[in-house]
Amino acid sequence: MKKVLAVNSGSSSFKYKLFSLDNEEVIASGMADRVGLPGSVFTMTLADGSQHDEQSDIANQEEAVQKLLSWLKEYNVIDSLEDIAGVGHRVVAGGEEFTDSTVITEDNLWKIYNMSDYAPLHNPAEADGIYAFMKVLPNVPEVAVFDTSFHQSLDPVQYLYSVPYKYYEKFRARKYGAHGTSARYVSRRTADLLNKPVEDLKMVLCHLGSGASVTAIKDGKSFDTSMGFSPVAGITMSTRSGDVDPSLLQFIMKKGNITSFNEVIKMLNTESGLLGLSGISPDMRDIEKAIKNGDKQAQLTKDIFINRIVRYIGAYMTEMGGLDVLVFTAGIGEHDASVRKQIMDGLTWLGLEYDEEANKANHEGVITTPNSKITAMIVPTNEELMIARDVVRLAKLDKLNK
Amino acid sequence: MKKVLAVNSGSSSFKYKLFSLDNEEVIASGMADRVGLPGSVFTMTLADGSQHDEQSDIANQEEAVQKLLSWLKEYNVIDSLEDIAGVGHRVVAGGEEFTDSTVITEDNLWKIYNMSDYAPLHNPAEADGIYAFMKVLPNVPEVAVFDTSFHQSLDPVQYLYSVPYKYYEKFRARKYGAHGTSARYVSRRTADLLNKPVEDLKMVLCHLGSGASVTAIKDGKSFDTSMGFSPVAGITMSTRSGDVDPSLLQFIMKKGNITSFNEVIKMLNTESGLLGLSGISPDMRDIEKAIKNGDKQAQLTKDIFINRIVRYIGAYMTEMGGLDVLVFTAGIGEHDASVRKQIMDGLTWLGLEYDEEANKANHEGVITTPNSKITAMIVPTNEELMIARDVVRLAKLDKLNK
Repeated sequence: MKKVLAVNSGSSSFKYKLFSLDNEEVIASGMADRVGLPGSVFTMTLADGSQHDEQSDIANQEEAVQKLLSWLKEYNVIDSLEDIAGVGHRVVAGGEEFTDSTVITEDNLWKIYNMSDYAPLHNPAEADGIYAFMKVLPNVPEVAVFDTSFHQSLDPVQYLYSVPYKYYEKFRARKYGAHGTSARYVSRRTADLLNKPVEDLKMVLCHLGSGASVTAIKDGKSFDTSMGFSPVAGITMSTRSGDVDPSLLQFIMKKGNITSFNEVIKMLNTESGLLGLSGISPDMRDIEKAIKNGDKQAQLTKDIFINRIVRYIGAYMTEMGGLDVLVFTAGIGEHDASVRKQIMDGLTWLGLEYDEEANKANHEGVITTPNSKITAMIVPTNEELMIARDVVRLAKLDKLNK
Repeated sequence: MKKVLAVNSGSSSFKYKLFSLDNEEVIASGMADRVGLPGSVFTMTLADGSQHDEQSDIANQEEAVQKLLSWLKEYNVIDSLEDIAGVGHRVVAGGEEFTDSTVITEDNLWKIYNMSDYAPLHNPAEADGIYAFMKVLPNVPEVAVFDTSFHQSLDPVQYLYSVPYKYYEKFRARKYGAHGTSARYVSRRTADLLNKPVEDLKMVLCHLGSGASVTAIKDGKSFDTSMGFSPVAGITMSTRSGDVDPSLLQFIMKKGNITSFNEVIKMLNTESGLLGLSGISPDMRDIEKAIKNGDKQAQLTKDIFINRIVRYIGAYMTEMGGLDVLVFTAGIGEHDASVRKQIMDGLTWLGLEYDEEANKANHEGVITTPNSKITAMIVPTNEELMIARDVVRLAKLDKLNK
């Protein structure tokens, strides 16, 4: 029985999920952490729920891949390495080059390395991860799946900034977006659940995790998205600011005696958002606990988080000329009924009518009434499954059950 | 017959309009330019349409004010200085201190000087202008009218950025907006024309001049506005970028070997917008000429200009929970039927139905059909009249005819 691995590599770690080709089920998952550092950790969770982990130094990513394969054999998840039919890798930045996922060649791997200007913390580590798997499994196809490629359908009207055009011509300075793999999965899943062609639905997807974005989907394609050149733009996130007037940053630099703009960008990525506004936590659950205890700054933080989402929904439905389906996904989107309710309150003027009970239930499916003029839904995201499916599609493996 | 002056001072210039208290008519207008520089110019246009100008060095703003007054007497616009009942001054930044226009005291004048961090190119020059008029006309009330004060009604949800809250607490780093005097005038005028209380109308104002902004008006108050901490944020303008991902700027600095963030901010203010995108001109009329000649980059530039406006209209009507009136004002807003048409095309999905002939006529009034679910209007702005009215109101002069 053939299997496909979905891998997400960091600079000293990778997470993995092993899917069965037959039924798209996860048969093993886990991570290698602190690779190349003292006290490395390797973990594996199996389909029967059993959890295994080990602390022992792992020198490099190749050794971590070896360990993964030997554990898979040891726990009888695979009979031999031949069972691994392909490996899919999440890659953050694909630039304008990669409008779809791609089978890795030497040439492609260099391109991924060379896009490190677009995602300095991610692309080099991801390319290293791919290379480690290539060395250990030289005969298995590796596929790169980019966070950005789904948004390559954007029109220049949406992806250009109003700065001198030479910066686009020379450096490809433009909007790339992110969460594209999630948006691709969720938009397809939404259409399936509604039993309608995805091309017929104007959708707005609210991907609300610790990273958060809003994406407009029209004709089955990404039409606009709130993240920008980088994931720092758009709506308020856990620790990222979302949209900010650049002049505000100049003012903060002057008043705060900050001389490096790179330091400001770091502040916008790691000290802002829910954490920066509330002073409490980057986690919405902590903010909500504080609200219950009467914390007004926490309430203001949540209200700002909601406001930015509502603004983008309004902007995107107007850009598209209407809205059929509003979809909530990722951590907060799937599990926080009060956030969803407050967002939907912002759309009742257009005839959205939510079903209080369905919203509270936190289950995949519709959470509006049959009379509602806009359908709202919860659709859990599954980026790893989308990665595995891309491996099947591009490496031309046996079809998964879909 | 008493008169009121409305003045807009720059670093080496001021523009003025003299209003008659009786009928709010402009009886003289013009400017002093290149004050303190070689080849100063002074101009005056009278109610009969006659135009006068003179080139001769003017040493400083006080001398320019003296010249203004002597010309007013010379051309029999006033009989004596006693005819000047008050002087109103446009001031760009009023911070959180000035939630309304104010009569100038020594204390207030210092506050305006000290807000130079918020508008370094404007506030010091405006304070200088006020001081020059105070010295020449010591017994006449001076009133400062701030671009920002109308937007002081914004809620923290709308005016805070999602950056660490300490920057607001310590430095008042927040959204201030601009074009507030215009928005105040236009919103009142709109309600008058519709013969409805301003408090009953949800409005979106599109102030489309070389500076451009979109403002949401609810309950007669500014509810949200597209300019931010500074006027560089929001929609695409003549030479200003509007909203930009800060990370894009970091990328441009790196790739373009730009070491100073101040230089980037200058680029966003002076080389971006319509000029930067088109490479042709900051003037929409030139862009439209190029479009007629088949220039595709010009078409893209115009489409981006429209798109950003439509995005903000969508965001703001959703924030307010509906839209009754869409108003166009300022240069492009009042005179460019094709821009208005393209914006209104973005709202037909909500039942906006425009009147092609009325739109083309470029006259103050309604440009939608009686059946339209959203009323769209052209309402020419008049910031100077608003300034004159504030002088009357705050200096408790005889009432104008309104």
